[in-house]
Amino acid sequence: MAVSETHRIQTKDLDTPPRLLLGPGPSNAHPRVLRALSNRQVGHLDPTFIDLMNEVQELLRYAWQTDNKVAIPVSGTGSAAMEAAIANTVEPGDHVLVGCNGYFGERMVDMASRYGAQVHRMDKPWGESFDLAEIRTAMEAARPAVLGLIHAETSTGARQPLEGVAELCAEFDCLLIVDTVTSLGGVPLFIDEWGIDVAYSGTQKCLSCPPGIGPLTLGPRALDKLERRSTPVPNWYLDMSLVGKYWGSQRTYHHTAPINMNYGFREALRLVAEEGLEQRWDRHAANAQLFWDGLENMGLSCHVDASIRLPSLTTVRVPEGVDAGAVARHLLNTYNIEIAGGLGQLAGKVWRIGLMGFNSRPENVRLLLSALQETIQK
Amino acid sequence: MAVSETHRIQTKDLDTPPRLLLGPGPSNAHPRVLRALSNRQVGHLDPTFIDLMNEVQELLRYAWQTDNKVAIPVSGTGSAAMEAAIANTVEPGDHVLVGCNGYFGERMVDMASRYGAQVHRMDKPWGESFDLAEIRTAMEAARPAVLGLIHAETSTGARQPLEGVAELCAEFDCLLIVDTVTSLGGVPLFIDEWGIDVAYSGTQKCLSCPPGIGPLTLGPRALDKLERRSTPVPNWYLDMSLVGKYWGSQRTYHHTAPINMNYGFREALRLVAEEGLEQRWDRHAANAQLFWDGLENMGLSCHVDASIRLPSLTTVRVPEGVDAGAVARHLLNTYNIEIAGGLGQLAGKVWRIGLMGFNSRPENVRLLLSALQETIQK
Repeated sequence: MAVSETHRIQTKDLDTPPRLLLGPGPSNAHPRVLRALSNRQVGHLDPTFIDLMNEVQELLRYAWQTDNKVAIPVSGTGSAAMEAAIANTVEPGDHVLVGCNGYFGERMVDMASRYGAQVHRMDKPWGESFDLAEIRTAMEAARPAVLGLIHAETSTGARQPLEGVAELCAEFDCLLIVDTVTSLGGVPLFIDEWGIDVAYSGTQKCLSCPPGIGPLTLGPRALDKLERRSTPVPNWYLDMSLVGKYWGSQRTYHHTAPINMNYGFREALRLVAEEGLEQRWDRHAANAQLFWDGLENMGLSCHVDASIRLPSLTTVRVPEGVDAGAVARHLLNTYNIEIAGGLGQLAGKVWRIGLMGFNSRPENVRLLLSALQETIQK
Repeated sequence: MAVSETHRIQTKDLDTPPRLLLGPGPSNAHPRVLRALSNRQVGHLDPTFIDLMNEVQELLRYAWQTDNKVAIPVSGTGSAAMEAAIANTVEPGDHVLVGCNGYFGERMVDMASRYGAQVHRMDKPWGESFDLAEIRTAMEAARPAVLGLIHAETSTGARQPLEGVAELCAEFDCLLIVDTVTSLGGVPLFIDEWGIDVAYSGTQKCLSCPPGIGPLTLGPRALDKLERRSTPVPNWYLDMSLVGKYWGSQRTYHHTAPINMNYGFREALRLVAEEGLEQRWDRHAANAQLFWDGLENMGLSCHVDASIRLPSLTTVRVPEGVDAGAVARHLLNTYNIEIAGGLGQLAGKVWRIGLMGFNSRPENVRLLLSALQETIQK
């Protein structure tokens, strides 16, 4: 049989422009993380990789402030970790209450529906968050087995306060799943103190690791629900009763871990441990404040109230008469700076600007403010 | 709230041993692929990344010898691509016939069951493959909507001949899903000529790219079945009706692609296109023959008949009185060579030895034969 040459195209050496990624993610990886990615490989069952898996889990527990046994990177992006959170804890027929105040709440509704949940929505305009009284009212109506909230809404830049929610969940005998994609490593977050049963995140935001691996943690109540399931998890790849045995003490083969991504993720978590969580949170807060002050000086305003505004992601209102897309394109083409537009309710109305992880630095704030001012005045 | 220091462990710079990975995978990545991994990032919707996505798809079509519109890397390992193949084409109640002659056939049974299929098994001892008459008999009994076969069984080293199977599938109006994890880029494989509707693979075998991304292709008949589904794909992350829009001309956001893994994968596929498929297949065949001749000279025998023996993966019978695990450990600890033992029916009975991609070189064969001889004689 003859080999067809149809798709044997000529390509050039990889040569990407030097982008400064100040959108909603990915953010630029830390140079140490990029170097770790290209480290020579060992096998996924090699004793040295097993040691590395232990370190990754332990460092992830620190970043998340949890003693949970299960704190692992899922072998997919943050969206896969999100689906793992849902797939393992939601059983067909379960009532699931989801806070819908942005794009990722909507996604949780979609995912929970696919796993057979009876989904109840708790709606709020994009950019706001829920208070305890609102959550209580919704829980009284829905009597959910699972409550899903987005700690850091990447589509709006709003932070969902979580203090007190676990007590409500205990009262209603309900699991608490929290999306921490844009908060882990950049915004105060205490999995155990706040009584969060399940959390997931991405690596390409405040952890400064390329996308491709998705942190997930399951607490004892979530593991208990998983063990008591009457049907197998309907997702083989993300079934934590199988994956957990690979990352646990048994090391039973499930799938081949993404070895080099784990190298990079370990390095990203080491950087968190070296800097210290408080210092890292303070740095994100200080650089965000510098940015917000600069915006105010330029006469620009933020979409989200300061009390719940994420330091990692700011939604900036597009002034009257300004073409949001044209500004973003100019920043990209002239200055190699990537920012993003709004989604859903906020499409065309805001820019989404991230100062995450390694990118949360005063020099990036200064450059961005200056480039933004020049672009808008053009 | 005070940050707990409990899990803030001290760690060292990454320093992995210089392993030669001659097991069933991962194999060593090509140095050019490792370098590409650490290339600086662009955003996942950056125009330059969109161009890269086009190149990746086109190069993958060449490697797979297909004109399929959908030929993409799934954002997970080969196991995720396997699940994507099943999740998108199997509907609840579908009759699915699976060739079970090794570990990965068993996995397909498990996955298809989770998606609600009525699974029919076609069994054969591990290390053998099915002939057309056997497949016809099983199809007459099962009348399947989907037939799943493992082209290259990583657990046994057996190749499943595929010529003529598509004609059978056409007769029974049945989709053909083929596992090409250990064949893509190393063993002759013609998706279109052989009439394969769905195929998936891994990157860490004959493509010499680290694990973390999973090639998948869907032909027109498979896409047609996907479009005609009466229920949504019960897996959000792997739903190709959504993922396809991101990789297709619409570029609709679904999840953030693993950017750096795509850099590496592109480089791996470029290496295939540069070398040429026939040359690559010939190289794998020649080095495997060199290895098999050497084994014979040492008095060792192969588990799989030469007519269906994979050049990428050889199962070598463990001689009477030899401790298979002790030999593997000695090779690892003394020579930094990784090989693996058998799984399932072949546990303790064979070693699994891979000569894949970049690792399929005469110097590796010579070293391995010499080290193996020394170890067994010890």
